[in-house]
Amino acid sequence: MSSRINHQWCLASRPVGQIKQSDFAWKEMPVPIPEDGELLVRIIYLSLDPAARGWMYEKVSYVPPLAIGDVMRGFTLGVVEQSRHPKFNPGDIVSGLLGWQEFAVANGKGLMKLSKASSFPLPAFLSVFGLTGLTAYFGLLNIGKPEAGETLVVSAAAGAVGSIVGQLGKIKGCHVVGTAGTEEKCHWLTEELGFDAAINYKTESLRRSLSMHCPNGIDIYFENVGGTLLETVLTLINLRARIVLCGLISQYNATDRVSGPDLASIIQKRARIEGFIATDHYQRAKDAISDLQKWVLEGRVKYRVDIVNGLENAPTAISRLFDGSNKGKLMIRVSEEPL
Amino acid sequence: MSSRINHQWCLASRPVGQIKQSDFAWKEMPVPIPEDGELLVRIIYLSLDPAARGWMYEKVSYVPPLAIGDVMRGFTLGVVEQSRHPKFNPGDIVSGLLGWQEFAVANGKGLMKLSKASSFPLPAFLSVFGLTGLTAYFGLLNIGKPEAGETLVVSAAAGAVGSIVGQLGKIKGCHVVGTAGTEEKCHWLTEELGFDAAINYKTESLRRSLSMHCPNGIDIYFENVGGTLLETVLTLINLRARIVLCGLISQYNATDRVSGPDLASIIQKRARIEGFIATDHYQRAKDAISDLQKWVLEGRVKYRVDIVNGLENAPTAISRLFDGSNKGKLMIRVSEEPL
Repeated sequence: MSSRINHQWCLASRPVGQIKQSDFAWKEMPVPIPEDGELLVRIIYLSLDPAARGWMYEKVSYVPPLAIGDVMRGFTLGVVEQSRHPKFNPGDIVSGLLGWQEFAVANGKGLMKLSKASSFPLPAFLSVFGLTGLTAYFGLLNIGKPEAGETLVVSAAAGAVGSIVGQLGKIKGCHVVGTAGTEEKCHWLTEELGFDAAINYKTESLRRSLSMHCPNGIDIYFENVGGTLLETVLTLINLRARIVLCGLISQYNATDRVSGPDLASIIQKRARIEGFIATDHYQRAKDAISDLQKWVLEGRVKYRVDIVNGLENAPTAISRLFDGSNKGKLMIRVSEEPL
Repeated sequence: MSSRINHQWCLASRPVGQIKQSDFAWKEMPVPIPEDGELLVRIIYLSLDPAARGWMYEKVSYVPPLAIGDVMRGFTLGVVEQSRHPKFNPGDIVSGLLGWQEFAVANGKGLMKLSKASSFPLPAFLSVFGLTGLTAYFGLLNIGKPEAGETLVVSAAAGAVGSIVGQLGKIKGCHVVGTAGTEEKCHWLTEELGFDAAINYKTESLRRSLSMHCPNGIDIYFENVGGTLLETVLTLINLRARIVLCGLISQYNATDRVSGPDLASIIQKRARIEGFIATDHYQRAKDAISDLQKWVLEGRVKYRVDIVNGLENAPTAISRLFDGSNKGKLMIRVSEEPL
């Protein structure tokens, strides 16, 4: 067993601007052996998320920064191969922050076991029922607090989080407008997901299209992007609007000093800009996942996944999050699903 | 009676950049005569507030914009001279939005009658017990929600609102740090008002001084200014910090496009930026004024007023709000107090 190889991607350098392949180092290590109270997980899927860009910085964010040489951080779904932990058995499917590698030894802390009874495909648990879905759910419902009849605007609406936010908005009775960067994505939002309108921010005038599709102003803005879009939205917000700050992907690779929007309208409209992180709301995760599973079964929430084969492709695949070329939740198939 | 003259300052042009005397036109009108259900008020004090700059713009803010030729908007304290309104009698002292003029006819709507029993000097009712004090009270307590032991930073801390915010912060058990633009103001904050520290933003490094005086980070920031100060504060905020957006005076006279701070830390710290306007909270004004009066009597809240004689001086006096040369709540003595 110990002669098997564990491939890993480790942090080689802190990226400046765009993430480059050379920011990662490919390592071959022996597969680790679990000690008492530990278990060995074979990783099946690795989630690629915009948050990874922040984890690569040196400065302290909401989690400690990675050190150079550390295995790159990432959410994973895997199968227990060996267990010396009383709560886990070989064959259990688990999710957790096990990183960019093929195998990991864990002590069970932070690991979630999936129900055997589930009939959903495994990738759903790294997307709509994983951090992605929970981010959409907690961000929109706990921070945005949508009321029926309100107008919700979602940026990066065809992204993994944004697409779920918009559908939850429809379930809550909102008028939902999304922005995306291709006609195909816009078409998917309105024709498949039930968005009331979609704006191609690359070809349309944001101000004109937002004004047209939000005739009653904007009550909630779910922000994944930052930059010009946020500035434009702030000129159209209603009294007591809520700006749910989920991400600012347009500035994650910035090398220059970043500025933000004029905040004058936040005073005039007594509005609120609030940041959040889904993991802060995990005490309600069980209810949230149960709601999301019900809505998926009813066909009211649809999701798509974009799966890239092979751990070796992770460093190039992750750049697709930043150029917008992924279609759905991006993840790596690290190894085969168990039969 | 109708041969008496009512001097007025009317909006002559919408200011570009700094407010200029030529943006106002001096008019002489006959003193108006109240009809049935109306009353005539002789104005004693006129409050000069940063919000006036916004009222002069054409665009719709939280109140309708003034038209060119309108009497300039402003809060006033006056004495009823004649009344054909059942709820007001000659001699009553009233406050309300009666504008930059010597006399006004009103229908009673939006007018507040002062208690005859009050032993406080009249200017207190345009400052600590007026919109100024209520702005500090509702902004800090309802939006900032201070907890004992937290660190509160106040910008324009020697200003009319900021000086009260800091003292309320001390009453609530916070560590309070203020910024101001002169040594005299800083001295007043720490030696007279009980601030824990004051930073002269014109001579000190903001980042170094804020770090030094806020060793446990910043939990609440009461924002009157905007610009570099807000940017620097956002690099020092704690988890779940509250940014109370009261004013952005540094940008009110801007002629170029204004940008704001990088909002990345708002996500990382799950923080909140919230705008407010004191008048939204008026249903609680009675309790607030009663608290403020108690604290003033106990010596726990001090205030100072900066009174300029003569309505003719209003257009030049108001610029002192923007260059920071006023010392305390700025107001115009339009006519003499009744004996």
